[in-house]
Amino acid sequence: MDVRNLQKPLASIVSAGLSKFGKLEGFSIREIFALAAREAFDNCPNLDVKKDVKALFIGHMIEGSEHQGQTGPLACDWIGLPEIPSFRFESACASSGSALRNGIFSIMSGLFDVVIIGGVERLTHLAVSEATEYLASSADYAFEQWHGFTFPALFASIARAHMYKYGTKEEHLAMVAVKNHSHGAKNPKAHIQKEISIDKVMESRVVASPLKLYDCSLISDGASCLVLTNPKIARKFTDSPVNIIGSGQAGDTIGIYQRGDLSTLDASARAAAQAYKMAGVKPEDINLAEVHDCFTIAEILAYEALGFCKRGDGKNLLEEKETCIDGCIPVNTSGGLKSKGHPVGATGAAQACEIFLQLTNQADKRQVSKAELGLTHNMGGTGSTAIVHIYRRG
Amino acid sequence: MDVRNLQKPLASIVSAGLSKFGKLEGFSIREIFALAAREAFDNCPNLDVKKDVKALFIGHMIEGSEHQGQTGPLACDWIGLPEIPSFRFESACASSGSALRNGIFSIMSGLFDVVIIGGVERLTHLAVSEATEYLASSADYAFEQWHGFTFPALFASIARAHMYKYGTKEEHLAMVAVKNHSHGAKNPKAHIQKEISIDKVMESRVVASPLKLYDCSLISDGASCLVLTNPKIARKFTDSPVNIIGSGQAGDTIGIYQRGDLSTLDASARAAAQAYKMAGVKPEDINLAEVHDCFTIAEILAYEALGFCKRGDGKNLLEEKETCIDGCIPVNTSGGLKSKGHPVGATGAAQACEIFLQLTNQADKRQVSKAELGLTHNMGGTGSTAIVHIYRRG
Repeated sequence: MDVRNLQKPLASIVSAGLSKFGKLEGFSIREIFALAAREAFDNCPNLDVKKDVKALFIGHMIEGSEHQGQTGPLACDWIGLPEIPSFRFESACASSGSALRNGIFSIMSGLFDVVIIGGVERLTHLAVSEATEYLASSADYAFEQWHGFTFPALFASIARAHMYKYGTKEEHLAMVAVKNHSHGAKNPKAHIQKEISIDKVMESRVVASPLKLYDCSLISDGASCLVLTNPKIARKFTDSPVNIIGSGQAGDTIGIYQRGDLSTLDASARAAAQAYKMAGVKPEDINLAEVHDCFTIAEILAYEALGFCKRGDGKNLLEEKETCIDGCIPVNTSGGLKSKGHPVGATGAAQACEIFLQLTNQADKRQVSKAELGLTHNMGGTGSTAIVHIYRRG
Repeated sequence: MDVRNLQKPLASIVSAGLSKFGKLEGFSIREIFALAAREAFDNCPNLDVKKDVKALFIGHMIEGSEHQGQTGPLACDWIGLPEIPSFRFESACASSGSALRNGIFSIMSGLFDVVIIGGVERLTHLAVSEATEYLASSADYAFEQWHGFTFPALFASIARAHMYKYGTKEEHLAMVAVKNHSHGAKNPKAHIQKEISIDKVMESRVVASPLKLYDCSLISDGASCLVLTNPKIARKFTDSPVNIIGSGQAGDTIGIYQRGDLSTLDASARAAAQAYKMAGVKPEDINLAEVHDCFTIAEILAYEALGFCKRGDGKNLLEEKETCIDGCIPVNTSGGLKSKGHPVGATGAAQACEIFLQLTNQADKRQVSKAELGLTHNMGGTGSTAIVHIYRRG
């Protein structure tokens, strides 16, 4: 199919910036976001920041870690744009996916022509017990958290259900970690840039069986920023815009205890169906994807929810290495949440940054060849928020 | 002027619901929001909730008070709509003003025809010191909060600046409290439904001089909900929709220490100018307004920022009782944050609820006569977020 003749784009990305992901010692929330915004602005010399940028949509999950709310005005202030309107989104780990989606609404409304989408989080200064408590707030406090159901334990339950139903093995989970670390080793912004082995994963200490340390994504600081425009004026800012042609979102119960089937990400499947329909494409048309691998099992479930394989067949894609950079559907070329890192509020927009880099041939050592169509899949909590976007080379 | 021939509406409100504001003992966040949503749904018998409602935009400031994030899916789950997409907004006390504005974007984008706008907060279970700490997170932690600059102290500084520059007196501040309590006494949903005297305010204990206890808004639990539709289909749901015809928003520095003039709400003035321009109306055309009286001084500054009087003349409106229900520009007929109460995340959408009730002649004992055009003014922090909407009887 000629993907250039599909649906009308909803909005265009004309620039992207990312802070280094990892332990950003000595930087506060406002300063971390400014690193990403500065890179996005520097990468877009035709953008007159003070004149063109009309609003900020920013994702940030954990205000408590700095006793600081109003991330919107805080961030605008620190990038020299205190007068513009701003909005902070919190959808747990899908916070900046939410920001992106609402930024798209605002462009489509015709009220704004150029906005910036951001995401930011600071986690590494917290004790592990504090970070665990904050992150658990994305699940159901009354009926899950309070009873000691930590976030890794929730995904461990999901993993067990999938293993029982489809024969997925711990080694398959490990393959996700090994693949994503091999991708992240090629990404200079990634939190951990080193390859690991299946043995290393299998021998790592148990966090919540069957999930071990190397099945879990990283606790990182970091920020992301996109410059989003009306598609009609995108070429004023760059010769190589990336158009967003599909946007889908669905919800699910806040707790997993109410769900009929733990072995699937139902909201993700519904969000993907919406996005594919809007974009007029099918799963097999997608050339690469960034998916929400908060735990290795989540990436396998994402393959199935996004239609990259049938339900239960996620393990086959891994055995056949089809989701590696040179496979038929490369997934998480950035390294994913697993190796690039997971500063939760920044993750959704950071996924879009990677797709932007790939579709504009700027991904250097991890560049996928001939990519025209990309997809991002961002989740909040145990999949109670799922957001899917589809992108086309402009 | 014939206000029926103005700009095309952006979106329409077809129903509204409000929980009782006050101490809602035994109700959690999810349950409080369900009270408001249930009322909005019950008030709109033509709405097929499961079929029609496509998304929730909800404001909620303080997730920490229940260790519970993802207010979006949490609220959707509890009102029987777990599958719809949802977005949580945090802009301090302007959280549900933000939600309303983004809901409007989504309607204008054409992607949704019917959405619900919500706001919720639970505060009364907190100790005063805890509530003070949480509320202070809307100011600048590093350069204000940490140094002991509480939220009342910030507005006390603003009050002092206004008193010094314009001769506003403590008695003028007290007049705001007296007026809003007299309005709130007529509102069965209000937190405190009793009239007070100037003496009562003047004799109340000092919180941060010149602000005394009765100059401060209330710490309340509560929730608000609006059903928002594409104007083209509004009459499918009600014979008396209220159209939103103007929307403006501006930002300011997160801290007041960077501002040139403490005696004015600069972002509010800029947000109002945008909304008036979009609506094609002037301040003198507005028949009633709900403004952000987090402290009495803030209402006086709002009069001036919204153009209801010249700068420094706010006190004259009060002396002449022009902002009482039977004055030329009734302000805070609901009782405002001062008497109706201030469950912070719920406030912005609750202001729109009051305008909806007034413009549809449902405000009972506090009904303003012949109101065609209403306005809401919602602020976050010390005015670092300011959101203004203009409404017309449909």
